[in-house]
Amino acid sequence: MDAAEFRRRGKEMVDYMADYLENIEQRPVYPDVEPGYLRSLIPSEAPLEPDNYDDIIKDVERIIMPGVTHWHSPNFFAYFPSASSYPAMLADMLCGAIGCIGFSWAASPACTELETVMLDWLGKMLKLPEHFIAGTHGRGGGVIQAHSSVERASLIGGIMMRKVPTDNTYAVGGGMLKKMLEEDKAAGLIPFYFCATLGTTPSCAFDHITELGPICNEENMWMHIDAAYAGSAFICPEFRPLLNGVEFADSFNFNPHKWLLVNFDCSAMWVKKREDIIGAFKVEPLYLKHENQESGLVTDYRHWQIPLGRRFRSLKMWFVFRMYGLQGLQAHIRKQVALAKEFESLVRADKRFEICAEVVMGLVCFRLKGSNDLNQLLLKRITNSREIHLVPCQLSGLFVIRLAICSRSTDSCHIQHAWRHITQLSCELLQDNH
Amino acid sequence: MDAAEFRRRGKEMVDYMADYLENIEQRPVYPDVEPGYLRSLIPSEAPLEPDNYDDIIKDVERIIMPGVTHWHSPNFFAYFPSASSYPAMLADMLCGAIGCIGFSWAASPACTELETVMLDWLGKMLKLPEHFIAGTHGRGGGVIQAHSSVERASLIGGIMMRKVPTDNTYAVGGGMLKKMLEEDKAAGLIPFYFCATLGTTPSCAFDHITELGPICNEENMWMHIDAAYAGSAFICPEFRPLLNGVEFADSFNFNPHKWLLVNFDCSAMWVKKREDIIGAFKVEPLYLKHENQESGLVTDYRHWQIPLGRRFRSLKMWFVFRMYGLQGLQAHIRKQVALAKEFESLVRADKRFEICAEVVMGLVCFRLKGSNDLNQLLLKRITNSREIHLVPCQLSGLFVIRLAICSRSTDSCHIQHAWRHITQLSCELLQDNH
Repeated sequence: MDAAEFRRRGKEMVDYMADYLENIEQRPVYPDVEPGYLRSLIPSEAPLEPDNYDDIIKDVERIIMPGVTHWHSPNFFAYFPSASSYPAMLADMLCGAIGCIGFSWAASPACTELETVMLDWLGKMLKLPEHFIAGTHGRGGGVIQAHSSVERASLIGGIMMRKVPTDNTYAVGGGMLKKMLEEDKAAGLIPFYFCATLGTTPSCAFDHITELGPICNEENMWMHIDAAYAGSAFICPEFRPLLNGVEFADSFNFNPHKWLLVNFDCSAMWVKKREDIIGAFKVEPLYLKHENQESGLVTDYRHWQIPLGRRFRSLKMWFVFRMYGLQGLQAHIRKQVALAKEFESLVRADKRFEICAEVVMGLVCFRLKGSNDLNQLLLKRITNSREIHLVPCQLSGLFVIRLAICSRSTDSCHIQHAWRHITQLSCELLQDNH
Repeated sequence: MDAAEFRRRGKEMVDYMADYLENIEQRPVYPDVEPGYLRSLIPSEAPLEPDNYDDIIKDVERIIMPGVTHWHSPNFFAYFPSASSYPAMLADMLCGAIGCIGFSWAASPACTELETVMLDWLGKMLKLPEHFIAGTHGRGGGVIQAHSSVERASLIGGIMMRKVPTDNTYAVGGGMLKKMLEEDKAAGLIPFYFCATLGTTPSCAFDHITELGPICNEENMWMHIDAAYAGSAFICPEFRPLLNGVEFADSFNFNPHKWLLVNFDCSAMWVKKREDIIGAFKVEPLYLKHENQESGLVTDYRHWQIPLGRRFRSLKMWFVFRMYGLQGLQAHIRKQVALAKEFESLVRADKRFEICAEVVMGLVCFRLKGSNDLNQLLLKRITNSREIHLVPCQLSGLFVIRLAICSRSTDSCHIQHAWRHITQLSCELLQDNH
């Protein structure tokens, strides 16, 4: 395929992308395939000679699409949102053409420098404390990471980890942390790291970081704050108070690829003193050295992360921030929170159901009053209907259903439809179980 | 930006991508910017209201391009190749539109299943032993990982690591490994892991895995083989013998994103028993469980890797393997090896230079006969000229210059031009130093 052929096929692909997203609602949100479905549709070996491009595109509809869970369908309410916007897709296309690997400043200065500046922009949107901003003289700064879980990190590092029990709002408070620290120290252990969560995955609970922060600082523990989903909302002044206490943290992260319209992957992390993180991972072969690094002026992001290679991901942030503007991004957050509140009202108005956690952002945790089995059955029927897609969580031993506002195109009509569908399946279920 | 606007802007972007790659040779391969150049060209905060798209595109040329190291220029000979092909870019566009997160089978079955099948296709192209192929009943299989270095892994895991000294071809042999194992055991240490390299980064040396493999198996050590760059060449029968001994390995990886025309990132790894890797990383919250997982038939790739989220990267492999066919991919490898041999001949014909390591694939290690300082100066002049771009390595205490055939569009004329340029700068340097 030469450049001329790419121009033709690329434009067809742009139309395919737009068609897919414009008509996504017509597809069942959750695929009706059995494990192993794909292998039988595809040859067992790569072709010796080139296939025809038209056949490949036909196979996208024949083989791929029937097995896709449509995360950007307005009927997708599972997990948390995965961001999707047209400006981000355009930037990703550009990223693919430039195709540079930004492991060091010299490997592509623009790739490194735009990232630093975009993390500054974003940090300022969230009104992060000054020490997290790189600027020209700062000692902190931001980086795009691949996200994982603190539980997995402790497995890999061979570190003993204890979960701090939560209060009745599913949040961690200072008293409980203090108690556990005393226990650990009495047992001869050395507490050195605490991870607080703002917007937990099961119920979007917020740890009390204004209580937790001073304790971590006193005990000389590294405090990390993970706001994976909820962080995006802190660009709105009305949600920013939930981030109060971040000034105590050594590091902070959230995922613009969840709720800030920057396509996956884009997990933003800031550190107070970048020396801390650079020293931990440094590996420095001669073929990656470059003369500018001695100046102390440059950032070599390979020292900030586990992998070596890096894509030019900050282009996505740049395109999205500029094409939406802060106000456009705020409007997106507020719209989705309002939709969650709308769903909450519908649930509260039906006596057969209960709300299981405070609805602060775009997540509603609810269940049928009754047994876990009943709710498990309800979710199974929802999943099998393929009209909407949700996943469960566990709160205080209860099986709870989560509805997260996910797609950029979700509107009030989809919320109303989802509720009608849930109540209809519930009626059938309650009758069957009667 | 709505779908209609995306159709228009997307098609413009396709043309921009094609223009960029068709005319890349006209840009200086290495940017002429100082650290911090970008910050002064860009506002210090995100805009409140949306910017104009045309302004953003103008800024790509004004702000981004002057700071890009052009990895796909035919005059780029640094590091190792980073793959770039039009079919991979088309697949990546599709991946961006689908925008699914493939952390579990249920999160998008096609994303998981295509990956397993593509890793099988690729494993068969390399004629990997049967136990690495997932098939329908295998206990092994492949996965796309984010690549890193074994040295960094030992830092993170808190593991003591020793490098095994190499022979005069910069390769590790069985005798030396055996000697070190005896030393370690005598010191009360427990050797449990050995990483062999096929195609080292400094000089593309090949460890003697037929000697090393049986030793690892006898000692009950995990043997990993890393063929990051060279692995792609094993699809050619004439290079496949270099992989003999892989049957002793517990795991094997190489990077199709380096030399197999699949754009970054795509690091392919196979394991002999997938249970081994799944058990190590398993973290299982309720909201990620799905009913199919109990069947034992499904793969949940989140257990195979450190991060949680995953893009639909196997689409790139599928498009590239089908649009090139095995023969097309072999032709690409062979062409680039021939270009390296051509450059080697030019160096060997000039008595002022020496070749520093056997040229097996697309990498030539060479230097001016003389001091390290002299060669350092030469490389500095090459870098500053910005006509071609190379990086150094260290071999037996010598400062050596590496020329890697990188771009898909590099041809004989670029090799001839690079050599003329290097000899001209060398003449000037030798005169200045006289």
